[in-house]
Amino acid sequence: MNMRASGKHLAAEANKMTPHATPDIPATLEHLKDDAQNIFQRLEEISRDKVGVTRESYGKGESRAFDLVEKIARSEGLYTYRDQAANLVMELSPIADDEKYILIGSHLDSVPQGGNYDGAAGVIAGLLCLIEMKRSNISTDIPVKVIALRGEESAWFGACYLGSKALLGKLEDSEQDLPQRDDGRPLHEYMKEAGADVDNIRMGNVLIDTSRIAAFFELHIEQGPVLIARNLPVAAVTGIRGNIRHREIKCIGEAGHSGAVPRWLRHDAVFAAAELITRIDDHWTTILQHGGDLVATTGILSTNTENHAMSRIPGEVTFSFEARSQYDHTLTAIDALVHSECATIKQERRVDFIFDEPVKTPPAVLDERIVELIKNACEKENLPVEAIPSGAGHDASIFANSGVPTGMIFVRNRNGSHNPDEEMDIEDFIRGVSVLFNTVREFEDE
Amino acid sequence: MNMRASGKHLAAEANKMTPHATPDIPATLEHLKDDAQNIFQRLEEISRDKVGVTRESYGKGESRAFDLVEKIARSEGLYTYRDQAANLVMELSPIADDEKYILIGSHLDSVPQGGNYDGAAGVIAGLLCLIEMKRSNISTDIPVKVIALRGEESAWFGACYLGSKALLGKLEDSEQDLPQRDDGRPLHEYMKEAGADVDNIRMGNVLIDTSRIAAFFELHIEQGPVLIARNLPVAAVTGIRGNIRHREIKCIGEAGHSGAVPRWLRHDAVFAAAELITRIDDHWTTILQHGGDLVATTGILSTNTENHAMSRIPGEVTFSFEARSQYDHTLTAIDALVHSECATIKQERRVDFIFDEPVKTPPAVLDERIVELIKNACEKENLPVEAIPSGAGHDASIFANSGVPTGMIFVRNRNGSHNPDEEMDIEDFIRGVSVLFNTVREFEDE
Repeated sequence: MNMRASGKHLAAEANKMTPHATPDIPATLEHLKDDAQNIFQRLEEISRDKVGVTRESYGKGESRAFDLVEKIARSEGLYTYRDQAANLVMELSPIADDEKYILIGSHLDSVPQGGNYDGAAGVIAGLLCLIEMKRSNISTDIPVKVIALRGEESAWFGACYLGSKALLGKLEDSEQDLPQRDDGRPLHEYMKEAGADVDNIRMGNVLIDTSRIAAFFELHIEQGPVLIARNLPVAAVTGIRGNIRHREIKCIGEAGHSGAVPRWLRHDAVFAAAELITRIDDHWTTILQHGGDLVATTGILSTNTENHAMSRIPGEVTFSFEARSQYDHTLTAIDALVHSECATIKQERRVDFIFDEPVKTPPAVLDERIVELIKNACEKENLPVEAIPSGAGHDASIFANSGVPTGMIFVRNRNGSHNPDEEMDIEDFIRGVSVLFNTVREFEDE
Repeated sequence: MNMRASGKHLAAEANKMTPHATPDIPATLEHLKDDAQNIFQRLEEISRDKVGVTRESYGKGESRAFDLVEKIARSEGLYTYRDQAANLVMELSPIADDEKYILIGSHLDSVPQGGNYDGAAGVIAGLLCLIEMKRSNISTDIPVKVIALRGEESAWFGACYLGSKALLGKLEDSEQDLPQRDDGRPLHEYMKEAGADVDNIRMGNVLIDTSRIAAFFELHIEQGPVLIARNLPVAAVTGIRGNIRHREIKCIGEAGHSGAVPRWLRHDAVFAAAELITRIDDHWTTILQHGGDLVATTGILSTNTENHAMSRIPGEVTFSFEARSQYDHTLTAIDALVHSECATIKQERRVDFIFDEPVKTPPAVLDERIVELIKNACEKENLPVEAIPSGAGHDASIFANSGVPTGMIFVRNRNGSHNPDEEMDIEDFIRGVSVLFNTVREFEDE
């Protein structure tokens, strides 16, 4: 059944693989290509590590990047300042305290020995929009703020979205005490050194008036292989997948002599777990065929190393299970399906399943009207019009889940992210920035 | 599909689970029950360890057991001697050098802290047959020899059937140099100390004229749970399963971000391996439904501990695979099926499978005429008449594969073997010995 199902599924998805041609007409902001290249290059130079780039969250590498971007912004005549969470804000000219604004943002930190584009592309995209407006004397009805957010990567303190969360009063007390991976000093010390108002943040105060943010936009390199596989330079993002995670599910059977116990008397934990995974795969396929959104992963799987053997029926196997979807109802359904399948496998195979408490991160819903604006902007740039979900989390999800109408733009990128081999074409980037620029210009507050 | 198949299969096998009543009439050798109990008790006393019993192959524990059994045999007026491989032989009276004989045998060694019945039950069964014949002045057309074989357990030197193989010229040079698990001294030193003719064995000479062995009989406790589950005190053995073993099959996919890579672009090693195991299970079910004999086990299974993570698509999983069957053609077929399923899974899931060279042990075919004699003897004892395969290997397989017509009798045993919890009822044992006794008496050379 599974075989036929996956066959059908592959056929159904085949049309997604038809390559889309990249348009020949120049992007709206084609003339900013050299500026873009220049900024990425300078950023890479100041953060180069033995391999890749290293920009520590709320640390030296990130601060050096902040200083560089601020210097460039000022040299273009932009107005800049640091907010109470030590994020960098850039504006055409100071925006009045009671005025609504469009916020464009992403982060400048990187994982240790990571790539130059994850995060930085979004900040530089915003900066280029401001540069274009400044140089060409263009203004928008709703003024634009660009923000470089601090500490998006969990690699340094084990928690992510630190700058966004601090701004929105969502940074937990316990998170502020997390030790830095290299020297063990707590996050709040790093934040203080970077200039953040740690007392205010400790009190959980919301440091930004979200009712004044008309929209939040983030451009980001795609961290998956979809745009490469489908030959799309740019795509709108439909939503940011949430997830449900079981760190450890145990299947308990009964060990026994592999030769002497016939099938009907076995309690084989591995055959039971394999059947569970295969059944989940069948449901996954069905959900995709019905137009749903889901990815499922068992990244960790092992028989008990203390007593497993080639000629011993495995009495125990432990595995992780993670499902991600844009839709909360799908996460609920897949977890229920896992339990339901376990209930029948339990009976048939005379094993037991022991579940840990799952950890759930809700999906972030992106603004439908903004998704449409982004798609329209793509059309204007003569780009194929596509929208795909984001599998990884982003600062955008913090804003979306705080009630800010939010949109995201993906730019094609080879080799994933969080590694020195990130590979974004500057042409694709300029197309993405052009889409962002046009979307911001078209955006009207409701 | 699998679900329905296993459902059907369980239904088809349900009748096998109907309990058989134990007969009320006394066994032919019921009067030897106290003797049997006494011998087992004395054997247990001289080999008792902190937990269970320990009788080292070709070592002190085994030799103590040999001395005890020989002493008992002599006290009953039996003729005994040690052969060139230091095995113990017992006869009613010396058998002439040119005479054919029936051989009854099993082993007296145990695994470390094992149970008292694995092996010993077969030797004591043979001894009791001789005792009955001596006391009652019964003789058979073909004289009977009982042999206590040395070193059947692989626990001590990593190789098994040492005494049988030495006798039949099948003990490899390399095996004779294997170190003992506790002191590292080589097997040949242990053999020499036990009185074996190590020079002759080293030359690979056959120390026994197999053309003179009219038949080989072995009674053994069942090491699996079938006779318990089906409430059978005794069963004939249809054959001894051979096996084909892959110590390590690797499934190679491609690691990736668990959120950002959709199903159609994944190369997930765990989903591929799970599907393989589930497909093998489908074939297993089908083979059983068609009356075949097979058990299949993946005792070891693991993602790569160096880089696996809950949120990482597993790029690699390693697993063992062992199949056992009475039929060589089934072993060939299942290995071919594994390769064939891998070939289609490879294409569908864009992974690769890397196979090690399998190790194959051929099944031992037991003599059909002897299986019938054992069944007839069961009927005479008013026992349910059943024949089941042996999943574990036995000394009997060495004789069967050397061309000696061979038969085996299983006695019901709880909790498996190779552990202190072996639990054989003395009533069942006496029924088994009675079946053996009657089989030997009915046996005629062809």
